[in-house]
Amino acid sequence: MSHRGKEFVGILSQTEADLRRLAGIPDQYRVLFLQGGASLQFAMVPLNLSAQGDTVDYVHTGSWSQKAIEEAKKYCQVHLAASTAEEKFCRVPEQEELSFSANPSYVHITGNNTIFGSEFHYIPDTGGVPLVCDASSNILSRPMEIGRFGLLYAGAQKNIGPAGLTLVIIHESLLGKARPHVPTMLDYKPHADNDSCYNTPPCFSIYVAGLVFQHLLEGGGLSAIAEANRKKARLLYARIDSSDFYISPVQPGSRSLMNVPFTLQNPQLDAAFLQGAEQAGLVGLKGHRSVGGMRASIYNALPIQGVEALVAYMSEFERSHA
Amino acid sequence: MSHRGKEFVGILSQTEADLRRLAGIPDQYRVLFLQGGASLQFAMVPLNLSAQGDTVDYVHTGSWSQKAIEEAKKYCQVHLAASTAEEKFCRVPEQEELSFSANPSYVHITGNNTIFGSEFHYIPDTGGVPLVCDASSNILSRPMEIGRFGLLYAGAQKNIGPAGLTLVIIHESLLGKARPHVPTMLDYKPHADNDSCYNTPPCFSIYVAGLVFQHLLEGGGLSAIAEANRKKARLLYARIDSSDFYISPVQPGSRSLMNVPFTLQNPQLDAAFLQGAEQAGLVGLKGHRSVGGMRASIYNALPIQGVEALVAYMSEFERSHA
Repeated sequence: MSHRGKEFVGILSQTEADLRRLAGIPDQYRVLFLQGGASLQFAMVPLNLSAQGDTVDYVHTGSWSQKAIEEAKKYCQVHLAASTAEEKFCRVPEQEELSFSANPSYVHITGNNTIFGSEFHYIPDTGGVPLVCDASSNILSRPMEIGRFGLLYAGAQKNIGPAGLTLVIIHESLLGKARPHVPTMLDYKPHADNDSCYNTPPCFSIYVAGLVFQHLLEGGGLSAIAEANRKKARLLYARIDSSDFYISPVQPGSRSLMNVPFTLQNPQLDAAFLQGAEQAGLVGLKGHRSVGGMRASIYNALPIQGVEALVAYMSEFERSHA
Repeated sequence: MSHRGKEFVGILSQTEADLRRLAGIPDQYRVLFLQGGASLQFAMVPLNLSAQGDTVDYVHTGSWSQKAIEEAKKYCQVHLAASTAEEKFCRVPEQEELSFSANPSYVHITGNNTIFGSEFHYIPDTGGVPLVCDASSNILSRPMEIGRFGLLYAGAQKNIGPAGLTLVIIHESLLGKARPHVPTMLDYKPHADNDSCYNTPPCFSIYVAGLVFQHLLEGGGLSAIAEANRKKARLLYARIDSSDFYISPVQPGSRSLMNVPFTLQNPQLDAAFLQGAEQAGLVGLKGHRSVGGMRASIYNALPIQGVEALVAYMSEFERSHA
């Protein structure tokens, strides 16, 4: 099947139409199906949305914003509009704490911080400056007001589909501003002009993403999955907060609905906790190597039964080890 | 399944080991599983293998070399070591025709030209200058002496696996030479240093590629698939050459074993030929929009029965329309 044949072109256009309906994407936005992950977007964003010498504003809330900032520094003056580094990223900053530079080309946030488990539960007001959001780990987890953003990007592998597909939702006014000599593949415009077929797109991943979009639409759309996600997160945070045995390092107002890190009051029990969990079929609970402890990633695909099983195991482990 | 978990790390290392055995890749070469297709390599090659102001040599043999050249011109002085443009790309140049510049950083060839249907059946001698090959459309179709190249790259979608995976085989001496400020994702070194897991790789495509490598190994390796490919191509070219009804635009010494373009002496029959072919279950035979006519792509995955059916249809069509 050629990617320029009518079969795949049909799949691609249906996938985009379904995503537009699912996420409520306004007509002034283009949807691009790209490659390279969020890590490539860390470079594409400054190379497309700023000129040499420009200042760009970043909100620093964890490991991924750090990587985005480091990459942007190659191409721009980076101003930190806020940082919660000194608080060990236990929260995201509030609107009142954001201190923008005089004339930034854009403001960048990391919508959800997978490693530290914090999430923006509001959309920052940037006073008209394009807001760019790394939405890799919370896209499609709940309704988002796309019209408040200039650009959203997301690696597919959390809530969309197979790794190797990268979604970009960009306001059309931001196209065509890439720097001279940027590699063609790193310029959003040729991708937009060719409906994501400037070169062969990741066809199979797009096809699977399309199935996920259909599945979400059939399940009631983003409001329904948001309710399910809130229910899962509430259950898990309630269990963590119900005793001193487990500790959430994240402040309540910033807690992620996707990634729930927690520690044991007695870290010497970590190994036993993880081993018992694995025996109970609860895998992938080890916290990121940079922070330790535990982390439950409860993306869209995890049913509430998964969280219920984890909570039951946590209670049983506390009974037997407290 | 995390891409850093032991399950996927096992898949990745087995896939690389199988490819190394299959293609006979020497130890001094690194294998990278990347994204972005050959089109991103068109930029990555000059950005990694040449410095500002350097001259690089390209052999111009068709549409893909044209794109590679255009991209390289953003970053280098491009010297055409040879071009068959004036002969409508009916062949690739011979060794004696290659005229290299005084001190090129590398020499680039397009191993197989999908649109014009020509292929290099020899490896150019560059006198020690790193030879770079776009092997997207003939990799794994036959044994290749990897040690003669500095770097080979290939989009996966012809002979490897799903689109969205890009294979790079690079001599380790060429790593670590990227230009300052090149996007991290466009520098080969971090990918090599992190065993293709600098960021989340296209896991599923790598898994499928691994199945293809195993399949080829079980079938007798590249010598066996090469024999099958030669047999398919001989059959089809013999049918084209056996009368004046069909015409091959490519000179015999340069004919591709992967893409076989042909025209009808009477182009007014093109539409009838294609319609009848589709009715006979022979699809995708329309030539590329830039050259017209017909094109049979007979990659590894096409069994000889496919070529036999095409040849039978061609004979029948000639009988009824000559």
